[in-house]
Amino acid sequence: MSRHISEKYDEELAAVQESLMEMGGLVEQQLNDACRALITHNRELANKVRDVEQSVNTLEVELDDQCVSIIALRQPTARDLRVMMSIMKAVTDLERIGDEADRIAKMALHVADLPIPANQYADFHTIQSDLVPMLTGALDAFARADTALALSVIADDEKVDEGYAALVRKNITEMRENPEDVEHAMNLIWAARALERIGDHAKNISEYVVYQVEGEDVRHRRVDQEPT
Amino acid sequence: MSRHISEKYDEELAAVQESLMEMGGLVEQQLNDACRALITHNRELANKVRDVEQSVNTLEVELDDQCVSIIALRQPTARDLRVMMSIMKAVTDLERIGDEADRIAKMALHVADLPIPANQYADFHTIQSDLVPMLTGALDAFARADTALALSVIADDEKVDEGYAALVRKNITEMRENPEDVEHAMNLIWAARALERIGDHAKNISEYVVYQVEGEDVRHRRVDQEPT
Repeated sequence: MSRHISEKYDEELAAVQESLMEMGGLVEQQLNDACRALITHNRELANKVRDVEQSVNTLEVELDDQCVSIIALRQPTARDLRVMMSIMKAVTDLERIGDEADRIAKMALHVADLPIPANQYADFHTIQSDLVPMLTGALDAFARADTALALSVIADDEKVDEGYAALVRKNITEMRENPEDVEHAMNLIWAARALERIGDHAKNISEYVVYQVEGEDVRHRRVDQEPT
Repeated sequence: MSRHISEKYDEELAAVQESLMEMGGLVEQQLNDACRALITHNRELANKVRDVEQSVNTLEVELDDQCVSIIALRQPTARDLRVMMSIMKAVTDLERIGDEADRIAKMALHVADLPIPANQYADFHTIQSDLVPMLTGALDAFARADTALALSVIADDEKVDEGYAALVRKNITEMRENPEDVEHAMNLIWAARALERIGDHAKNISEYVVYQVEGEDVRHRRVDQEPT
């Protein structure tokens, strides 16, 4: 690329990366609000999360269009092209995180009028505490092209998976012993499942960082492990 | 593009589309086998599904690499570029369908040594019957760039969602009335959840067909509906 075109490309790339981080910030907020809405039985906050979903969807379509037109106009090669591909894939994952946060908000609406349980959602909160730094880390790793951070996020996904498996086991016992709690336990399992999925998406985003920096595809390098 | 380059591009595109259909066929088989393994408590078949998962993952990485190198070398624009983007996105969805089929196979292993329930998984089978033609339709629509078929697949997703919601309701009642069945009911809900997710992926693939043919992004055009 000539210097003039290359400068223009850098500007456009910077703009698209900025939009991606904006989308990331929105989705992070959505996740935090959704968890808080569930734990505190806050109907208003749950509805707020559901409204933001629309903005996330709009950003997804806009970002995809930006990427396609940059690729078409600037025809980037090698690493630049990998960066564009990574951004397009990360956009999909961010949108799905938004979907999962929306699911948690739905669960929050289901329970909003019930009393807060005695354990105050302790197990759910444990998963959330492991997950939130993962998502922040994945976004930071992406912004700074920091593969070391990306690899540590990938490793952290195991904690989220374990927390989720523990919550499921506990709630299955709970349902067996107190059949009247089945619906509540199921809601909690659904919400925790959403957190577990968000962990997978944060891991995906981190894998794109490694791919874009090193050109190495880390997906499927290890045998996938998953709690049941 | 000159005629020579354009012919070369067409050949490469045809090769990549063929690989995509190969991956699609593999995943379809995986889904059918996983459902049959669950319904007939067939441990051997479930293990076979789990083995195929590796081939699907390998194909995913290969296809992504093929697409990136075509874009880098041939620098397609407009509709050709949209086609490449759609293929890359469809690859991700196919891989996730493989993951979900793998989850169903896991559930099949969980129940393999138990007696087959009296209702022979009738509700699960209903969802499967609605879903399998959706996946076949999505792949056909993609292969033929058939937007009418794609739109009908998108519409069919509602049936799968309804079937899933009905199964969940029924099993929640079951768990409340027969707490000793909690674990079995939960397994069935997980497996049905996997079918519901596969429906979403088939819908995504169909949306890429519309996008690649008409350049119109149909994602998020309607307010997302989802069973709880």
